[in-house]
Amino acid sequence: MKDVAARAGVGLKTVSRVVNEEAGVTETTIARVQAAIDALGFRRNDSARLLRKGRTASIGLVLEDLADPFYAPLSRAVEEVARAHANLLFTGSSAEDSAREQELVLAFCARRVDGLIVVPASDDHRYLEPEMAAGVATVFVDRPAGQITADEVLTDNAGGVREGVAHLVAHGHRRIGFLGDRPHIHTATERLRGYREAMAAAALPVHDSWVSMGPTAPDRVRSELERMLAGPEPVTALFVGNNRITVTAVRVLARYGRPVALVGFDDFELADLLRPGISVIAQDPALLGRTAARLLFRRLDGAAGPPHRVELSGHLIARGSGEIPPTH
Amino acid sequence: MKDVAARAGVGLKTVSRVVNEEAGVTETTIARVQAAIDALGFRRNDSARLLRKGRTASIGLVLEDLADPFYAPLSRAVEEVARAHANLLFTGSSAEDSAREQELVLAFCARRVDGLIVVPASDDHRYLEPEMAAGVATVFVDRPAGQITADEVLTDNAGGVREGVAHLVAHGHRRIGFLGDRPHIHTATERLRGYREAMAAAALPVHDSWVSMGPTAPDRVRSELERMLAGPEPVTALFVGNNRITVTAVRVLARYGRPVALVGFDDFELADLLRPGISVIAQDPALLGRTAARLLFRRLDGAAGPPHRVELSGHLIARGSGEIPPTH
Repeated sequence: MKDVAARAGVGLKTVSRVVNEEAGVTETTIARVQAAIDALGFRRNDSARLLRKGRTASIGLVLEDLADPFYAPLSRAVEEVARAHANLLFTGSSAEDSAREQELVLAFCARRVDGLIVVPASDDHRYLEPEMAAGVATVFVDRPAGQITADEVLTDNAGGVREGVAHLVAHGHRRIGFLGDRPHIHTATERLRGYREAMAAAALPVHDSWVSMGPTAPDRVRSELERMLAGPEPVTALFVGNNRITVTAVRVLARYGRPVALVGFDDFELADLLRPGISVIAQDPALLGRTAARLLFRRLDGAAGPPHRVELSGHLIARGSGEIPPTH
Repeated sequence: MKDVAARAGVGLKTVSRVVNEEAGVTETTIARVQAAIDALGFRRNDSARLLRKGRTASIGLVLEDLADPFYAPLSRAVEEVARAHANLLFTGSSAEDSAREQELVLAFCARRVDGLIVVPASDDHRYLEPEMAAGVATVFVDRPAGQITADEVLTDNAGGVREGVAHLVAHGHRRIGFLGDRPHIHTATERLRGYREAMAAAALPVHDSWVSMGPTAPDRVRSELERMLAGPEPVTALFVGNNRITVTAVRVLARYGRPVALVGFDDFELADLLRPGISVIAQDPALLGRTAARLLFRRLDGAAGPPHRVELSGHLIARGSGEIPPTH
């Protein structure tokens, strides 16, 4: 700025006024300062400029995995809303690791983001309270905040699974298995709850061997499925807890001798082109992201009031796999 | 910092030394300053701190669409490398719009990223020269830089298509269509070049009606495919130019009366579970991202020398659709 002032023949304060688009500078002076800036190849530094205004016009998004086809449209939707508000987006994957979530969130805060959208990996967000108290707007999406009260945008997971399991029951199934994600993940336990509620509502027993919660790694899914399909009381239908599990389940069932009914949570591309088509409880990841981002920017625009909890519904898409009758 | 200094009973310079972890401060003083910082709820401000050091430990990634299953693993791979270097990641989608690419890139630069990884939408990157001259390390990935020389990590697109088309020729096809993305996209024209070269190498003619370049919107892909499959000289095989087009082509061919051979560029999840399985030229988006990010951080660590151009190979995965013989 000293160089610009010297070259333009004005004081430092005048350069500052021009750069910050303040009043009280003549057009001639503005042009002279601008010419000096151009001549010196001066690079605008938003960091410093925005910090002076107290806003950085950036938000942070922490999710489980940028490469997961469920989170990819969610990210893109957040990005579009951020863009409409002239904000830039930091993104990071927690990889379902609560320490990594916290590290990313605090790194974004240290970089002075104005707001955060978090798909929680952690079940304790008290570490965020000082940041939120200091004015970082925060919205949790897909899973609720842990140990604190905050804005949340969720899907009705239990309700979606109830609908899916009731659909299998309506097609004659009595021995229905549930294969879900790790039990520390909120959506996973909510979906398990929906399964148990639907079985209870149909007055059906749930054998321990019909339920399996754990990592979505293909090897585990494969061996658990094979276990449920063997033994004296094999399942005739399966509800599987997310798109990662569904993809492996489809592979396993494709090589299995008998038809087994399948409903999965989360829709996925090409589900309709498989034979049979895969019936799913579909939620809308882009809508989750868009809703969370809009809520965040309403807060940044000054919307006060207690934390909101928005709950979106999933819905059944019947394509064939969920309509297979029991075969044994 | 004034408040911290007053509370700790030390000077401003001492606070600064403690915050910046400089030498020459006793352990007792460090503890006193730290206690004052904690008591006042002082939030560490990386922006200011890093700017003083000249590095922000952040990089920007501009790609076409965060929600595209090709770019999602690329993003995640870049993120992992950035994380290993303790860098945060800005991401943004250009939506194949060169103005939007430039806007994002310059916004990241104004926010003082140390480096950029760009999947170009633009074919002219001279706007980046001042930033690169000012020290912003830049690597282009998936598509080359336009009008400037820079580090690039690309796939051998023409070579991949040559292999795919030769495979169709080897299975007896003579009338082979090519359905690609918009011709201003470098990968799209490179793939078209590979198609023309493979047809020429097999001494096969290419009718104008067998080639179509344009948006990947399902409606256009559908009508162009239907056109190629009708008329006096219908194609018996198709090479399609990317995963978005493949997905629509699979849908159209599933409802078409006769079997038509199909090879697509880019692998996609569940391609092996469709009937027939879809034969593809697979590239590795995570490897593209990882290679680009590693090259970027080598530059940031001081690696000098002329721009690198890394070219990765695609490879054919035969699953059934590309091995269907001509039927008419």
